[in-house]
Amino acid sequence: MTRVQLKPPYLLLIGAESDATYAKTALGIVQWCPEKVMGQLRFDGADVDLGVPDMSVAEAAAQGCGSLVIGVAPVGGTVPDSWWAIITEAARAGLDIVSGLHIRLADRDGLADIARNAHARLVDVRVPPKGLPVGNGKPRTGKRILTVAADCAIGKKYTALALHRALQDLGADSTYRATGQTGIMIAGEGLPIDAVVADFISGAAEVLSPAADPAHIDVIEGQGSIFHPGYSGVALGLMHGSQPDGFVVCHDPLRAVVSGWPHYRLPPLEEVIETHLALGRRTNPAIRCLGIAVNTSGLPADARQPHLEQLAAETGLPCIDPVAIGAEAIARNAIGQFLTE
Amino acid sequence: MTRVQLKPPYLLLIGAESDATYAKTALGIVQWCPEKVMGQLRFDGADVDLGVPDMSVAEAAAQGCGSLVIGVAPVGGTVPDSWWAIITEAARAGLDIVSGLHIRLADRDGLADIARNAHARLVDVRVPPKGLPVGNGKPRTGKRILTVAADCAIGKKYTALALHRALQDLGADSTYRATGQTGIMIAGEGLPIDAVVADFISGAAEVLSPAADPAHIDVIEGQGSIFHPGYSGVALGLMHGSQPDGFVVCHDPLRAVVSGWPHYRLPPLEEVIETHLALGRRTNPAIRCLGIAVNTSGLPADARQPHLEQLAAETGLPCIDPVAIGAEAIARNAIGQFLTE
Repeated sequence: MTRVQLKPPYLLLIGAESDATYAKTALGIVQWCPEKVMGQLRFDGADVDLGVPDMSVAEAAAQGCGSLVIGVAPVGGTVPDSWWAIITEAARAGLDIVSGLHIRLADRDGLADIARNAHARLVDVRVPPKGLPVGNGKPRTGKRILTVAADCAIGKKYTALALHRALQDLGADSTYRATGQTGIMIAGEGLPIDAVVADFISGAAEVLSPAADPAHIDVIEGQGSIFHPGYSGVALGLMHGSQPDGFVVCHDPLRAVVSGWPHYRLPPLEEVIETHLALGRRTNPAIRCLGIAVNTSGLPADARQPHLEQLAAETGLPCIDPVAIGAEAIARNAIGQFLTE
Repeated sequence: MTRVQLKPPYLLLIGAESDATYAKTALGIVQWCPEKVMGQLRFDGADVDLGVPDMSVAEAAAQGCGSLVIGVAPVGGTVPDSWWAIITEAARAGLDIVSGLHIRLADRDGLADIARNAHARLVDVRVPPKGLPVGNGKPRTGKRILTVAADCAIGKKYTALALHRALQDLGADSTYRATGQTGIMIAGEGLPIDAVVADFISGAAEVLSPAADPAHIDVIEGQGSIFHPGYSGVALGLMHGSQPDGFVVCHDPLRAVVSGWPHYRLPPLEEVIETHLALGRRTNPAIRCLGIAVNTSGLPADARQPHLEQLAAETGLPCIDPVAIGAEAIARNAIGQFLTE
């Protein structure tokens, strides 16, 4: 497994982003490791604000910044020219460039030379290790929980981090397993599952959450969605390779369509649960749904708790808002169910 | 162009092969597209004979050959020096080199320079083109049929080729869409879907079968299986990107477990059909099963036709053996169903 060692503090490149959905990398870094963040670099027109100081490359470099971190994920991975100008300036100033994009920094004409001359590194956190195997599908010891959803950018990483924290708070032996750029930046290691060659998706998932002590719990960050017209392959391969004993559905009651794919309606919650159960049984017949992680922030304040209670009554599952309440109820459910086995 | 495209006619490199098993790519090319084959290049000791003219590189080049196609898998995986001598000679003569080998042609010392000087291309059909998009999931005109199965190596390529031929024989406007190396060499173009980076599987499938005349039918070669512990991600992404109007299930009545994964039983045929319908509806609500392509070769000769008839009675679908009978019944079903729309 690759280990990524990043050099703080970070200047987070936001560009002209106006949709926070696509700034989830930067938002996650600020949320989970604020002590590593020096500032943000925004262009005119950017509506996203991380709540950290705005800085130019020159200002950050003068204050001892370690890395320019590309904190925005453009759809399809195409990087605007305005970003390349900033990246080049930062490399010339000696900042490491940390990227989670599909395109490799070293493939940019001249950038590798500029970085080398300034003793800066080009760090692609999404480059998977070589030699990943095809999934073998064999059962392995230890417990695994996967966060899933009907869409992307709906809380799978956050929920996994919150559940991992709650499990640890309850004394469980838990590891957070990162599958995406932000998670890898937060955890310091992981496997960029959606950058793996298609034949090796489930094999990579097996490598990510290896055999462990029977009482150990891996909390695996989900990617994509089996219902997503662009990313379903990633999601199914990740689930089959993870062989989850349980999954948590991340849910936004106000999201009606796939974010960025407005011609796709999201399936009902019950269908999300049943389809994951049906497909997940292929590699782990004991798979079960452990709870629903709901983003209630869009509901009126006095409607949030009733919504969670109604959902819990309908599904018979712990329903929590991981941001507002934390994931303790789901952690308790997981520990209780796994203890009986 | 984001598809692999080959330049006919071909000179097929057979080497000293004496076992037809290892020449199945070359045999498939001659079987399905003899019009693209100029000749074969065999060394002393070769027992495999494709039934096409023997030729040297010089003879083929003088007659306007487009590509030297490596139609054999070397035993043990190592490419013999005798092959490299021929490959180098062909590149120097201006022939494209087409390879499905694990080793990349450009990694061979000096070969890239020789090819460049002769305006020849080194084409690794296992290497997907750059610039593939994320799947957008938008409906597109034209009809699409995907071959699927509960396992790999069970007839998806053969069935797609047979169905394409049957559609053409019936006067339909059909294109075979190749997703694997042999299929790409046969079709002269395609996309190696299992070598694509995970995020772009369905996008690659969209590129492979683009918008077309409403009456046009793409027959898409399936890869992997949504039930396969190693390759389910490839299969689901391919199905979602293909947006098939119909699918054909390839079935072997004597295969009980996943080939090479003996701890996985194959699901019942009915479950194979229902699961593909349920998941395929996500990007094409009109998806239907058009028939079953059965490998009856393992059954006693007098049991084959009764088996097909029983299966047809059980499923209400045309059930054929594409090798023994051909795919006309499924082609007629597809044309009939598509005509009513």
